[in-house]
Amino acid sequence: MNEFALIETYFNWSGSNLVNLGIGDDCAIIDIDANYQLVTSVDTLIEGVHFPINTSASDIAYKSLAVNLSDLAAMGARAKYFTLALTLPDINKKWLSQFSASLKSLADEFDIVLVGGDTTKGALSITINVTGVVEKNKALLRSSAQVGDLIFVSNTIGDAAYAWKQLQDKKTPSEYVINQFNRPKPQLFLGQKLSGIANACIDISDGLEQDLIHILTRSSVGASINLNDIPLGNEVKVYIKKTNDWCLILAGGDDYELCFTVPVKNMDLLKALQNKNNVTVTQIGVINNSMALTKIGSFDKQCCSYQHF
Amino acid sequence: MNEFALIETYFNWSGSNLVNLGIGDDCAIIDIDANYQLVTSVDTLIEGVHFPINTSASDIAYKSLAVNLSDLAAMGARAKYFTLALTLPDINKKWLSQFSASLKSLADEFDIVLVGGDTTKGALSITINVTGVVEKNKALLRSSAQVGDLIFVSNTIGDAAYAWKQLQDKKTPSEYVINQFNRPKPQLFLGQKLSGIANACIDISDGLEQDLIHILTRSSVGASINLNDIPLGNEVKVYIKKTNDWCLILAGGDDYELCFTVPVKNMDLLKALQNKNNVTVTQIGVINNSMALTKIGSFDKQCCSYQHF
Repeated sequence: MNEFALIETYFNWSGSNLVNLGIGDDCAIIDIDANYQLVTSVDTLIEGVHFPINTSASDIAYKSLAVNLSDLAAMGARAKYFTLALTLPDINKKWLSQFSASLKSLADEFDIVLVGGDTTKGALSITINVTGVVEKNKALLRSSAQVGDLIFVSNTIGDAAYAWKQLQDKKTPSEYVINQFNRPKPQLFLGQKLSGIANACIDISDGLEQDLIHILTRSSVGASINLNDIPLGNEVKVYIKKTNDWCLILAGGDDYELCFTVPVKNMDLLKALQNKNNVTVTQIGVINNSMALTKIGSFDKQCCSYQHF
Repeated sequence: MNEFALIETYFNWSGSNLVNLGIGDDCAIIDIDANYQLVTSVDTLIEGVHFPINTSASDIAYKSLAVNLSDLAAMGARAKYFTLALTLPDINKKWLSQFSASLKSLADEFDIVLVGGDTTKGALSITINVTGVVEKNKALLRSSAQVGDLIFVSNTIGDAAYAWKQLQDKKTPSEYVINQFNRPKPQLFLGQKLSGIANACIDISDGLEQDLIHILTRSSVGASINLNDIPLGNEVKVYIKKTNDWCLILAGGDDYELCFTVPVKNMDLLKALQNKNNVTVTQIGVINNSMALTKIGSFDKQCCSYQHF
């Protein structure tokens, strides 16, 4: 099967009005409304680094797109289109069918269109470049946290890292935590709703501590967080009680939850958002002018966040 | 060195007005004028597949961006911004400095801005996603060739393939042909000028025959080309005379010249373009209604174009 047949067979999904010309020319052509800005981000996932070697094609496809959608969520953007650069060791039709179906299913769920791609031969690697839109000057930035803002995270922290730890320890993770690791839910809905409520936002990919520090650094502020306020899933709660291994929570990564800061004057809006929608957010701390991150709780160890090299 | 230091050190070039927010947040934010459409394309280059293992960092960077710019050229687009997904086996500071400097130099030449990226650890691979703009409905498509159009190519065909062949035969290519292979010049200027003159256009990446057939298929037309009209460089001319190996010309790939079709009524415009600018284009054939590609010349062999798998 040559590249063109491969693309025709597995990736030539029907487009939408957004795309005038998708797969099949040198470039895709995309219409963008005035009053909007583009937001774009790229992430590569490599077998054995970002997902274990036995991960299913379906889970790989899901995660490759989800982690990119999560970057759009952190900007408060709506997803629009993406490109896929797929490097494969060989053509495995069953694998490709499963990969394609799973990718399409998630793309459809978030109304995002595949507009182009490239397939090459080599060690399995997936690079997705995702593009969304935000109303002009409405993007949620890392750099807009203000002293006095309350710090929140969505849902629970540490489930994915706990699954990954169990895999490394040759244990079998529960279905719940492995699902949090393989199929993190992109928080696009929450991100969009936070526009106008939150001052600053980031998605937690490398670990809560490191990602919160990105907000602090870019915003030239400090923060104090209370470890005991961080929302944990049941299994992780038991594990932390037994081990006091807070590094799993602070440096674990792969959660793809949002961490954001809200000025006190917007707390009513945030509460209304929580009441109206099925959204779970928890306050974990406060932005201050200390230029440092203080962690309150029975813990004084330095954690090592995920390092890319 | 962690990923953030790596990006700060090697890839945080100063942006332009185009980019409100470049490297340093979850996504880049980009302004796009009304009256324009986006065109986007992605290509991956892998060591040992798309460039020989001993290729310099500088040449790898150049080619990775150039082949993507070539896709924009084929659409008649202006380059705007790109993202870089870089997979490296390790951090080699000298390599990264050379890669970064060469990438920036080519980006500056074509006025394109690096807005985001991802670095991962693995076998050397470079994925660039390039985005440009065209005036609404002015893009050059593969699908717009008309019966009676004259078929042109820019500059000379086969130099890059000849260099690649010599490398595979353990010979040392001349500086001229290896340069055509490592540093193909993106034909953005020509592509932009062809908007309003050419009906259809493609860049020759996989081989003249296969790429011309893409135009024929998408346009539902046929063509006849005369092999002796294909413009060849001096070394390639000598090689073909000796070997009659027309497959090198027809199926060689890696030229990144443009192949385009021009209606007879626009020939004066094309001639004016040639006279005013330093642009070399040569007619090699005619679009007809045969639904097939006829090759006139002393040659009846089937060539195998580049296959991605």
